[in-house]
Amino acid sequence: MLTQKELQKRTMTEDGQLMLREAYRGQIETIWDRFETQAPHCGFGELGTCCRNCMQGPCRIDPFGEGATLGACGASADTIVARNLGRAIAAGTAAHSGHAKHLAHTLLKSAEGKAPDYPIRDEAKLKAVAQRLGISGDGKSTEELARDVAHAALADFSEKETPVAWAATNVTQGRIETFMKHGVVPTGIDSAISEIMHQTAYGVDADPVNLLLGGVKCALADFAGCHMGTDLADILFGTPKPTASTANLGVLKSDAVNIALHGHNPVLSDVIAQVANELDEEAKNAGAPAGINLVGICCTGNEVLMRHGIPSATHSVSQELAVLTGAVDVMVVDYQCIMPSLSTLAECNHTKLITTMPIAKIPGASHIEFSEEKARDTAKEIIRQGIEAFKSRDPKEVNIPPQQSTVLAGFSTEAIISALSLVDKDDPLKPLIDNIVNGNIQGVCLFAGCNNVRVTQDSNFVTMAKELAKENVLLLATGCGAGAMARHGLLTSEATDKYAGDGLKAVFTAVGEAAGLDGPLPLVLHMGSCVDNVRASDVAVAVADKLEVDLDKLPVVASAPEPTTEKAIAIGTWAVAAGLPTHVGVVPPVLGGAAVANVLTDEIKGIFGGYFIVETDPVSAAGKLLEAIKERRKGLGI
Amino acid sequence: MLTQKELQKRTMTEDGQLMLREAYRGQIETIWDRFETQAPHCGFGELGTCCRNCMQGPCRIDPFGEGATLGACGASADTIVARNLGRAIAAGTAAHSGHAKHLAHTLLKSAEGKAPDYPIRDEAKLKAVAQRLGISGDGKSTEELARDVAHAALADFSEKETPVAWAATNVTQGRIETFMKHGVVPTGIDSAISEIMHQTAYGVDADPVNLLLGGVKCALADFAGCHMGTDLADILFGTPKPTASTANLGVLKSDAVNIALHGHNPVLSDVIAQVANELDEEAKNAGAPAGINLVGICCTGNEVLMRHGIPSATHSVSQELAVLTGAVDVMVVDYQCIMPSLSTLAECNHTKLITTMPIAKIPGASHIEFSEEKARDTAKEIIRQGIEAFKSRDPKEVNIPPQQSTVLAGFSTEAIISALSLVDKDDPLKPLIDNIVNGNIQGVCLFAGCNNVRVTQDSNFVTMAKELAKENVLLLATGCGAGAMARHGLLTSEATDKYAGDGLKAVFTAVGEAAGLDGPLPLVLHMGSCVDNVRASDVAVAVADKLEVDLDKLPVVASAPEPTTEKAIAIGTWAVAAGLPTHVGVVPPVLGGAAVANVLTDEIKGIFGGYFIVETDPVSAAGKLLEAIKERRKGLGI
Repeated sequence: MLTQKELQKRTMTEDGQLMLREAYRGQIETIWDRFETQAPHCGFGELGTCCRNCMQGPCRIDPFGEGATLGACGASADTIVARNLGRAIAAGTAAHSGHAKHLAHTLLKSAEGKAPDYPIRDEAKLKAVAQRLGISGDGKSTEELARDVAHAALADFSEKETPVAWAATNVTQGRIETFMKHGVVPTGIDSAISEIMHQTAYGVDADPVNLLLGGVKCALADFAGCHMGTDLADILFGTPKPTASTANLGVLKSDAVNIALHGHNPVLSDVIAQVANELDEEAKNAGAPAGINLVGICCTGNEVLMRHGIPSATHSVSQELAVLTGAVDVMVVDYQCIMPSLSTLAECNHTKLITTMPIAKIPGASHIEFSEEKARDTAKEIIRQGIEAFKSRDPKEVNIPPQQSTVLAGFSTEAIISALSLVDKDDPLKPLIDNIVNGNIQGVCLFAGCNNVRVTQDSNFVTMAKELAKENVLLLATGCGAGAMARHGLLTSEATDKYAGDGLKAVFTAVGEAAGLDGPLPLVLHMGSCVDNVRASDVAVAVADKLEVDLDKLPVVASAPEPTTEKAIAIGTWAVAAGLPTHVGVVPPVLGGAAVANVLTDEIKGIFGGYFIVETDPVSAAGKLLEAIKERRKGLGI
Repeated sequence: MLTQKELQKRTMTEDGQLMLREAYRGQIETIWDRFETQAPHCGFGELGTCCRNCMQGPCRIDPFGEGATLGACGASADTIVARNLGRAIAAGTAAHSGHAKHLAHTLLKSAEGKAPDYPIRDEAKLKAVAQRLGISGDGKSTEELARDVAHAALADFSEKETPVAWAATNVTQGRIETFMKHGVVPTGIDSAISEIMHQTAYGVDADPVNLLLGGVKCALADFAGCHMGTDLADILFGTPKPTASTANLGVLKSDAVNIALHGHNPVLSDVIAQVANELDEEAKNAGAPAGINLVGICCTGNEVLMRHGIPSATHSVSQELAVLTGAVDVMVVDYQCIMPSLSTLAECNHTKLITTMPIAKIPGASHIEFSEEKARDTAKEIIRQGIEAFKSRDPKEVNIPPQQSTVLAGFSTEAIISALSLVDKDDPLKPLIDNIVNGNIQGVCLFAGCNNVRVTQDSNFVTMAKELAKENVLLLATGCGAGAMARHGLLTSEATDKYAGDGLKAVFTAVGEAAGLDGPLPLVLHMGSCVDNVRASDVAVAVADKLEVDLDKLPVVASAPEPTTEKAIAIGTWAVAAGLPTHVGVVPPVLGGAAVANVLTDEIKGIFGGYFIVETDPVSAAGKLLEAIKERRKGLGI
């Protein structure tokens, strides 16, 4: 039997602990078990000093200088570490921007009348994006403008003579100048990925600093991809507004057909959310009195939570536990962060696992290929498969943990500005800036990134959020980070009352009251999925522009306390390039290259202003971020 | 002291053995020493079952089923192996196509009058390429046509609705249909790289076969990149014609300023070749009576050998040995396969190591950034640095091995067709096809790929060439493979007399005599650099079209007996997709995935006709290729 202590080491969520106990009883393996089987982990891999970029290796550099000090070709530890890091950034960029490109095609089809299931839902956002890109809307229909924006988006993937528009139009002028000075401006998203893959190949770049700058260039392409993903999703599905919902595995219902929406791209899940209630009757007729119950997992979950108030079942490392409840009838996935193990678990239960994207199949899963042209039909087909699966669900095997947290999500940039404008209609940023200046708000911290099986699930997020909140740091969250905050009740007014310092509480109470909430704003503002980190950067850019300082002067920091994916590495890198002190709570595979590690945590400050803080202890990490905030405040003379 | 046996285990070149003995005396470390320091190599890495695509790992799958059978996320050995393979293909594609894109920009600048150092040197090739692409030349000036071709080339990198033109126009109609059927047609080169990087990221594709098909799609983008690189180089620098030269380290001269041209892209080296003799007087005045002596290393060397008859000093694994002669005054590099160790070796000698490309710097080297706008100036500056370095060369430290082989290179597709047309003016392919049908020529084998420190340098190439030649297999070679053949005198008429079977000898003698050579064609036809593998595929496509069969029916095979780079993996994959039985003489990191290995070596035959043959013993490998050729002959009823 797993002791309570062992369970608590795996996850701090009570619902998760319950399910893990069940898994143990049923001798069902989860990621935590497989992770243990992998121990001891390869030290070379963890340090980043294993090179597999040619067939003369693998070459590995001994960190203690006792074994090989160079790869067969003469590559040093720093060269190897920097190459590996560059490739991780390339993969992260490919993922985010693949998602964005997908939406660009959807928008184009929408504009061309080829995807009637995808009307333009947010004309204001379309116009705002077009204006930002310098695309005139004069005399154009919505569809014509959408077409032009879609073309601009698709053009951003190809190498061209001008910078990637989605990167260049979403930062301060000061950043652009810094990026130009250091030669890190991407001129195409796909071409930037291709370039760093070339640069990191056998016998190409051996200069660690040049490789890191190449990585930054690709990371700025990632920033563009993320921003495009957010913009186009808003145009197609609506810009999120504050929305109440619930979180934790308790959102699954024993008396409903439960459809779990998992992955990252709202392109299918949003349509499922739109059509689900049309099939409520069918579900009821099949014996599910509560009809269809959609729940979200990972960032697809965040997308439908932000726009439709669909409850968030879980995220990331605990995704298997949703299937283990025996209550999920269909889990439909798009791409990214989807564990292959789901297939085995689904087979052991009655759950139907459905893949939908041509580049993301799983052995043992059913594949229903998605296309915009028949999105509603596909959505219904998937739900109907859930209804069918429900019929074979064994109620005795259903074990839904009771935990449910209240959640207020949907804090897009626009929603935040809108809330602030209730305090100062003419100058919405003024209340925020005034309170930063007067110290009620010491600074801003964005929590982003994944859960990681190496960290007790959510513990770093929750500890750091509480530590920083009491020091009056305004907290934003996205992705799995937002999920962690959701599961522990931190997306609520109550959390603000309980954990916020007096200054922050006063500000959030004033804004909350003006916004007609029953209490203050939630302690943490849920800004969306992982591509939605750009919403936070948009707020920072707006503040910087208003203060007429660059981003690297603001008391704004970022943290990925439990990062897992290469996407997180890409995001972290552009956050640093954007000028932010950026914390990571899992040691990235760079420590084997002393010079690289030094550049990333120190010297890069002289180039971009931002830098990485690597700290696995959450209390210390919060302290270091607070120090960084104070240093910035001092720099601004406030 | 290294014994003669140990030396012979490292390389079968006598000049290499001499230099390695010197290196040992001087306690100078080379790749062979560093390779030994790396032993034992990580078995997980060698088998391909180490996954580092997220920060929860590295995860490693035990090949004997005794340790972990799944990664933490649930990824199987096959999933991990297929993902790693996909990423290797992505990197190889990025390298080849980065080179091609570079030339496309050069061509565009040439067309726009912005690069006077780059006139169109081969209008016939320009017209042929334009015609193949469906670009009309009517009423266009050379520059206008060049501009259109350059635009078409650049357009091929971006995702679009039509297939990559450089892929689709260079294969048989049958191949296109097969590629369409299996969904592996790339619509952009950079976008294909980006897509497979996304597909292989954490939690995206877990289906090994789907991943392998994704890899094939990217490899076809690699084919396009290679073909474009070859086409554009021919347009800008001339299509190679048979050219006599020399090879081995003996091509360095003690009484000349020796400039070694190393890397892969002729964009700078061809200009150096054009201007070198302008500086002969300066070199003589500096005390070098023989003036400037250019020598080539790796594929940059192949490019200038094919077009300017510049001797080939060495390739790949033995590149360090050129510096160890103490006679290289400047080694100028562009990108790919350039060992970082050169920098340390250059410092220990008087050699000036000069990097020239923004994505390929080496700590300790001088960097002179290349641009088309000032190519001749840069070329002269580099040569002058060689003259300066020569002044500090210590003649006592010079140790040039005496070996020099005679070489006949320059067998572009056009040159081969031209030679055959001397036998049959109206139907040049007829003599080739007739002799394949009558059995004088049993089949064709293309030798490609690198040297690899795991293999006694050149031994697999030479053994296999001799084995197949005596069985009347027509031999083509590119890249380091061509270099290996050059170093061992196999690019000569004498070698044909000595090693070719009677049928092959008769044919080569007839063609050689018709071409006005003093003897038969060389035993192995040197077709160029590694991108020039497409020249061989062009010959095969022409034969297939004429016979009205598809490529997978021809008695044509490929071999990379000593592969190293990810580029070789990409090329091998497109060779298989093109329908060729394709041998690799170093075990690629796939054996840890039994299903993947089985697909690659067997099941893929049912999809594309081609398949991989993994065989480290060169005699057995030759036997297996011969078997494959005989099977194909049987299939054709000949």
